[in-house]
Amino acid sequence: MFLPIFFIISFLFSSTNADDFCVGDLNGPVGPAGYSCKKTATGDDFSFSGLRTAGNTTNLVKAAITPAFSTQFPGVNGLGLSMARLDLDVDGVIPMHTHPRASELILVMHGTLLAGFMSSDNKVYSKSLNKGDIMVFPQGLLHFQINTGKTQSLAFVSFNSADPGIQIFHLSMFANDLPTDVIAKATFLDNAQIKKLKGVLGGTG
Amino acid sequence: MFLPIFFIISFLFSSTNADDFCVGDLNGPVGPAGYSCKKTATGDDFSFSGLRTAGNTTNLVKAAITPAFSTQFPGVNGLGLSMARLDLDVDGVIPMHTHPRASELILVMHGTLLAGFMSSDNKVYSKSLNKGDIMVFPQGLLHFQINTGKTQSLAFVSFNSADPGIQIFHLSMFANDLPTDVIAKATFLDNAQIKKLKGVLGGTG
Amino acid sequence: MFLPIFFIISFLFSSTNADDFCVGDLNGPVGPAGYSCKKTATGDDFSFSGLRTAGNTTNLVKAAITPAFSTQFPGVNGLGLSMARLDLDVDGVIPMHTHPRASELILVMHGTLLAGFMSSDNKVYSKSLNKGDIMVFPQGLLHFQINTGKTQSLAFVSFNSADPGIQIFHLSMFANDLPTDVIAKATFLDNAQIKKLKGVLGGTG
Amino acid sequence: MFLPIFFIISFLFSSTNADDFCVGDLNGPVGPAGYSCKKTATGDDFSFSGLRTAGNTTNLVKAAITPAFSTQFPGVNGLGLSMARLDLDVDGVIPMHTHPRASELILVMHGTLLAGFMSSDNKVYSKSLNKGDIMVFPQGLLHFQINTGKTQSLAFVSFNSADPGIQIFHLSMFANDLPTDVIAKATFLDNAQIKKLKGVLGGTG
Amino acid sequence: MFLPIFFIISFLFSSTNADDFCVGDLNGPVGPAGYSCKKTATGDDFSFSGLRTAGNTTNLVKAAITPAFSTQFPGVNGLGLSMARLDLDVDGVIPMHTHPRASELILVMHGTLLAGFMSSDNKVYSKSLNKGDIMVFPQGLLHFQINTGKTQSLAFVSFNSADPGIQIFHLSMFANDLPTDVIAKATFLDNAQIKKLKGVLGGTG
Amino acid sequence: MFLPIFFIISFLFSSTNADDFCVGDLNGPVGPAGYSCKKTATGDDFSFSGLRTAGNTTNLVKAAITPAFSTQFPGVNGLGLSMARLDLDVDGVIPMHTHPRASELILVMHGTLLAGFMSSDNKVYSKSLNKGDIMVFPQGLLHFQINTGKTQSLAFVSFNSADPGIQIFHLSMFANDLPTDVIAKATFLDNAQIKKLKGVLGGTG
Repeated sequence: MFLPIFFIISFLFSSTNADDFCVGDLNGPVGPAGYSCKKTATGDDFSFSGLRTAGNTTNLVKAAITPAFSTQFPGVNGLGLSMARLDLDVDGVIPMHTHPRASELILVMHGTLLAGFMSSDNKVYSKSLNKGDIMVFPQGLLHFQINTGKTQSLAFVSFNSADPGIQIFHLSMFANDLPTDVIAKATFLDNAQIKKLKGVLGGTG
Repeated sequence: MFLPIFFIISFLFSSTNADDFCVGDLNGPVGPAGYSCKKTATGDDFSFSGLRTAGNTTNLVKAAITPAFSTQFPGVNGLGLSMARLDLDVDGVIPMHTHPRASELILVMHGTLLAGFMSSDNKVYSKSLNKGDIMVFPQGLLHFQINTGKTQSLAFVSFNSADPGIQIFHLSMFANDLPTDVIAKATFLDNAQIKKLKGVLGGTG
Repeated sequence: MFLPIFFIISFLFSSTNADDFCVGDLNGPVGPAGYSCKKTATGDDFSFSGLRTAGNTTNLVKAAITPAFSTQFPGVNGLGLSMARLDLDVDGVIPMHTHPRASELILVMHGTLLAGFMSSDNKVYSKSLNKGDIMVFPQGLLHFQINTGKTQSLAFVSFNSADPGIQIFHLSMFANDLPTDVIAKATFLDNAQIKKLKGVLGGTG
Repeated sequence: MFLPIFFIISFLFSSTNADDFCVGDLNGPVGPAGYSCKKTATGDDFSFSGLRTAGNTTNLVKAAITPAFSTQFPGVNGLGLSMARLDLDVDGVIPMHTHPRASELILVMHGTLLAGFMSSDNKVYSKSLNKGDIMVFPQGLLHFQINTGKTQSLAFVSFNSADPGIQIFHLSMFANDLPTDVIAKATFLDNAQIKKLKGVLGGTG
Repeated sequence: MFLPIFFIISFLFSSTNADDFCVGDLNGPVGPAGYSCKKTATGDDFSFSGLRTAGNTTNLVKAAITPAFSTQFPGVNGLGLSMARLDLDVDGVIPMHTHPRASELILVMHGTLLAGFMSSDNKVYSKSLNKGDIMVFPQGLLHFQINTGKTQSLAFVSFNSADPGIQIFHLSMFANDLPTDVIAKATFLDNAQIKKLKGVLGGTG
Repeated sequence: MFLPIFFIISFLFSSTNADDFCVGDLNGPVGPAGYSCKKTATGDDFSFSGLRTAGNTTNLVKAAITPAFSTQFPGVNGLGLSMARLDLDVDGVIPMHTHPRASELILVMHGTLLAGFMSSDNKVYSKSLNKGDIMVFPQGLLHFQINTGKTQSLAFVSFNSADPGIQIFHLSMFANDLPTDVIAKATFLDNAQIKKLKGVLGGTG
């Protein structure tokens, strides 16, 4: 007796699993809206355990960013949101950066962070954040987070894009072959400062 | 003499027919924005006769939904709208459901329908609709239509998505293997009620 | 005992009725996204009976367009869809026009219509439509509908905008003060033709 | 010497602070895109401490949802994202619900949750989540979270809308005046079941 | 010493170059959002020299449109903007046309242009533009540009779509096989006028 | 005789001029989608002469940006595009900056510019541009333009937002009260360098 009721809707969903989601096929063609859709999906495609463990903070910034974007977590492909985990040792810093395609919400899990962003009219909006606090960084603006407490700090950040991008200022400037004189003209920094940081960060030119 | 005027614009359109539309290629790759585009199209690709005839209403709900979404009518792929036909016998009902990715407009062609939706603050917005009436159901909200008249009823619904989706509550709950105790906890329904409906609708667990 | 469960969500919805919809306040400020929201709403705000009756077809085109856009039906404001009713007498025509901000789906209720659109590369996509047929007109493209049958025809059109706009070619050209020589240069039409139509349609210049 | 460089850009930003953000003015007009913008903003507008403390879980579901949507946290107005805090006692449950205008990412802070969603074709995608795990719920689909562990559980959820909405199934059905016979027809539930839940949840009709 | 800092972000970007852009692969699958992405890109992909030189104005309209849309300039694919160059001899005209998927900004480089558009309520908004002037044409509306000066004129137009489309009225009507009687009914033009222009522009029917 | 034809459409447009455009009312409420709409508009509202003349380049960067965003040119409000004029003396530079809400197309009118952007993976995409060349800068990425020729240079830039924003790195860092030690931690720059630039650019802290 229950077959007829199935009939009325069953052919709605016969030809594609892309109706409600589009788990990314990292080997298929990529387009402006993201990865192609995998043909089948299970519950495992929609969960991700890669943020369970802290990133390696044994580095210059004493901090680590662990992303769960569509490339790491294909389940969010096409769904317009993603996350990342931030680990900061004492004195650690997530350096000055932007996300070119998303706004961000930070949630502090433990520790104390000084977080801030600059607006287009060069004003500073900053706040000291503690456990349970959240803060929003409007789309595309320069922002930073610094561990100003006496313990390690853990935070999670959410984005309204499955592929928000992350552009870290000092790496964009000093970790490639952008010529020193171009950087000097475009940033007002001294040549000596630029060359010093190119040395530290592996840049040339 | 007319050739030069062609020349000024002809190369605008030489390499793709995807300029103005993207008739879905059901066999090509699928992405978050929909199907890939067929390489050529004719007038037939943009019209659809599948809504001419009534769906089979010999079923538990005495009603039928006949969709013209991008899977059935690939001409709407990428254009952001679609339709469906609703046939309701006397006492027929389109059960409580949502469209996860679209708002809906219903147009009653004949008969009398009681239609309604519930908002996020649990209010009911309902209306008795007659021939020629339209009603809007805001995106993603639970809604229903019931034939409260003494004749068959016919209605057409429009969506602002080529792939709006349709999630029917009792099928989502009782026509799969979602465990009875999970349903009971998440819906407040009694176990006996759940098991009875799983029996009717083919669910297990 | 039921009060606590209300508590957990009640404050979610205390301060605005704009959560799920935004019924247009035609007297409030208007912005790029549409009208301001009315402060309260009832079921009546979401239904509309203005499409029940045929428009007046005693005119030059033997046809009438009756819109249910956000201005006529404020319930669709902000929801991204709307409708209109088309009545065509024998030999009636919905003249060559575009909708600058929406794609359109036509549904033929009775009679026979020849409908078509032209693409950017000047191809014609046309189809003779009968009762129950639907056809899509991609966003912004010139299209028309002509009653080619021997009876009156009725159709309903859906749009994926609450405010799709409608620009009818001959009225845009000949029913205002656009100078005849400008029209002649920009359309290749003869001055005599232009002046004749300005006379019929009330244009000057 | 530094004045000239200011001159070249200073007039860019003279007339509005809405360039980069639009902190909601809860007393101004509301439109389809959200609240009007406050005229001035400080760092405090962009952070929120309302998620620091657990919601009150002394209720039927042994759980609490504490939102930080644009109504509670006007700093996210217009920025397209928001959060909420979920507290679940042992055996607590966030009941079956949808967000009509957003996809969701859940992040488990402690405890064990069984989470799942149903797709339009009635399949179940569920997963047992532990500390540090995330899971995505595609836009508009029914989903639930149940504390299946032996300790309290805490989770945070992110949305890609500043006003995602939340529609809880049993409250939409049983906590208002939707008539029992309508519910029965539209959900397949028995009248006795409906009346029992209306009694528990405060509904009438 | 600089290796650790690379480590913290290097795996963000390891699997795709589609993060920040999606240079169109004209030979790959096309979808509703545009071309597939090329696998690699260089600086050359983001610049275009095809607008350096004037189009051929030896034609009926004494004007030429040279587009830099995603088909000609694949670097803009997926980025939501494009340009075109307009050359107009003395008495030249860019004929009455629409862009179905974009608003337009014109910038006059030299000469004098009369430019205008018609709104949905048939009003004319026109302006005489000189060197350095800009004018906006709202999405989808009929507009035109005429060289009313005594010298050649050059202008550049920008669109907020990588594939705005261009529909030129007289070509859509008279340069294809749309039957004369259909055109006559749908435009109010006389049969003689239609046939004359079909002759000039290569149309049949 | 022409009155009837007016009748069929005249009531479409009776109550608002916001149908096709929304010229910004700089004194009305502002929302996330832009300014409120002026009640009436003329051709003058849609054109702008403020880009006719060069900006004042007597400053540290030997360059000037003259914007035509919705604040300066309210005709583009809600239409999703805008422009700006760039004047660069010999050795002038538009410093390293981002547009948080838009992609950009540059068009070089005269002179020679070295232009470039950095992607999220720290690669440099640069190009020497001459008269008539265009180049695209993907949304939100750091980019710069330098006059590398022996004459003044003039360029125009288009954006796919009416309010793209502009964030200039050295002003965001050094022209406000962001503390020196915060800048040092977040950018790797030396304190001496920071203090020197704060002195030049008027910053404190």
